[in-house]
Amino acid sequence: MSIPTQAYAAHSHTTPLVPWSFERRDVRPDDVLIDITYCGVCHSDLHTARNDWGWTTYPIVPGHEIVGRVSAVGAQVSGFKPGDLVGVGCMVDSCQHCPPCEQGLEQYCEHGHIGTYGGTDPKDGQRTQGGYSDKIVVNHQFVLRVPGNLDEKAVPPLLCAGITTWSPLRHWKVRPGSRVAVVGLGGLGHMAIKLARALGAEVTLFSRSPGKSDDAQRLGASHVVISTDRAQMKAVANRFDLIIDTVPYEHDLNPYLPTLKFDGTLVLVGLVGKLQPPVSSVPLLLGRKSVAGSAIGGIAETQEMLDFCGQHGIVSDVEMIDMQGINDAYERMLKSDVKYRFVIDMASLKSPVSP
Amino acid sequence: MSIPTQAYAAHSHTTPLVPWSFERRDVRPDDVLIDITYCGVCHSDLHTARNDWGWTTYPIVPGHEIVGRVSAVGAQVSGFKPGDLVGVGCMVDSCQHCPPCEQGLEQYCEHGHIGTYGGTDPKDGQRTQGGYSDKIVVNHQFVLRVPGNLDEKAVPPLLCAGITTWSPLRHWKVRPGSRVAVVGLGGLGHMAIKLARALGAEVTLFSRSPGKSDDAQRLGASHVVISTDRAQMKAVANRFDLIIDTVPYEHDLNPYLPTLKFDGTLVLVGLVGKLQPPVSSVPLLLGRKSVAGSAIGGIAETQEMLDFCGQHGIVSDVEMIDMQGINDAYERMLKSDVKYRFVIDMASLKSPVSP
Repeated sequence: MSIPTQAYAAHSHTTPLVPWSFERRDVRPDDVLIDITYCGVCHSDLHTARNDWGWTTYPIVPGHEIVGRVSAVGAQVSGFKPGDLVGVGCMVDSCQHCPPCEQGLEQYCEHGHIGTYGGTDPKDGQRTQGGYSDKIVVNHQFVLRVPGNLDEKAVPPLLCAGITTWSPLRHWKVRPGSRVAVVGLGGLGHMAIKLARALGAEVTLFSRSPGKSDDAQRLGASHVVISTDRAQMKAVANRFDLIIDTVPYEHDLNPYLPTLKFDGTLVLVGLVGKLQPPVSSVPLLLGRKSVAGSAIGGIAETQEMLDFCGQHGIVSDVEMIDMQGINDAYERMLKSDVKYRFVIDMASLKSPVSP
Repeated sequence: MSIPTQAYAAHSHTTPLVPWSFERRDVRPDDVLIDITYCGVCHSDLHTARNDWGWTTYPIVPGHEIVGRVSAVGAQVSGFKPGDLVGVGCMVDSCQHCPPCEQGLEQYCEHGHIGTYGGTDPKDGQRTQGGYSDKIVVNHQFVLRVPGNLDEKAVPPLLCAGITTWSPLRHWKVRPGSRVAVVGLGGLGHMAIKLARALGAEVTLFSRSPGKSDDAQRLGASHVVISTDRAQMKAVANRFDLIIDTVPYEHDLNPYLPTLKFDGTLVLVGLVGKLQPPVSSVPLLLGRKSVAGSAIGGIAETQEMLDFCGQHGIVSDVEMIDMQGINDAYERMLKSDVKYRFVIDMASLKSPVSP
């Protein structure tokens, strides 16, 4: 038995995404079947579709910012029932018994977490396929509850962009009085500002252009510092407890490190690549500063973040698209032409819904 | 009034150190005058003498691992009296009121701590001169007590090599059960092994050559991993809570980062330069790992370290030299030909004491 599924898939790194039908596994006793209503569009989707990281096997259905309604549950699942509004993020399984898993940090599973797409299911060996599809089957331990008061279509980015910034904000103990800086104002950066502000921090955006000030302040930043302006950078020396660096391409960290307080941390959440140009050790040594990395977040902290967003009325700033518009959306993402996340209305998979 | 002082100084970056006489400031009410008995020889001395970092003003008297006896104290000094066995490390002053100073971490003083040599005294504007000399005048707040049970001539390296490794061991909470790795077996590395072991950690030395195993184990390491051996490195993946990297020149950190446990930190204590070749962000992101820096240690934690060494009978492994042998010692240091720290017997300043 298996479940016919409609989707959009990439079949090579040079061809656009096109409609594709495939079969999801049948619902196991510990699974939840979800009718997907909305799916966010993450830069990772694009990187994977185009095999930028070299690990893509085709065909691939991207999408790991998934929101939908439960339509069936396995016999052992008691936490969810048909009709529940739920989410699925970047992971759909992990070993559950290594030290990180035992601490609820499945993203750091020592055996490798199973990605929502492009992974291999540990039980049946099938490749996982993502949320650019009408339904998905997921182990209930990797299904999140979505607060009912939030605008459902603006929730998907919380499941990747949101948790990716929430996890380091919490790990590095951001609280009222903390000073947080954010590098990069995109999908991740705009969530970092909203979440840090809601946690009570004073938030600064580092930007290379002055044009982002109004938006940054609307999102919750109290300061915008032009990172190419030496005088402005010097004025914020030794200032920040935490810098969340969301930039997804190689860039120079050296201007930012002196703006950390002693014992401060610059945490990379977007860069998969080299710290190029090379980082100088001097500001690290002179203030016991750190350069760290952080990847998405564990399931428990993702639920915590969703609940927090429910309490504070936080969602992502989104631009809705039809499934048919995904290839155009990718081109616009490459030009950073989106404020701040595309979300696919999955009803469009059957027929376009945009005016 | 001032105090005639005999010393060895460098007068240019190309000439050897030679005897030099100068005047120390007179003892202020909050000062301690110390007759120096022993002074350790740190790589920073050599770098400074040869202006490797570009900030040297000549003549310069190096030396910041100073042990001696108090010979006079100022009127306001109640904590020390003539005859006390004391030490002076890398700092002789700081602002005392910025956030790091208020936390007892004067080395990170936001106004810059005053180095034992090559600094500028904030009160009289005179340049500070180090411990390759028969006496020194130091603000009592920067004078340490040396436990009487330790071999006095093997204590000086504790004041730089010791505290430089102690501070990160304590900051990153090394305790019984911790797994610590050390990169580089020199002055700092051999102290890192001794101190980490005495704190109860399981200690591993990363080495590029198998010849260091016996010594590493004698010092307290339970494992030696050949860092160029891929199989050995793979066998210690996700293993270490903390890596203390003592290597003072540019080197590749990428092989070490996967050996950190998730949430682990590689702390640089020797490198003043670039993280070259560039560090990959991937192991940082995949385990919330950090690359940090740490510089020497605060006065309070230096005293804590000295007391700990007294309790555990820990000193440095030293090779004694006469003051006249300093230039030869520098040449040997450049070849890493010392186990593990040269210490100058300062009695030799007046007449050679070696056989």
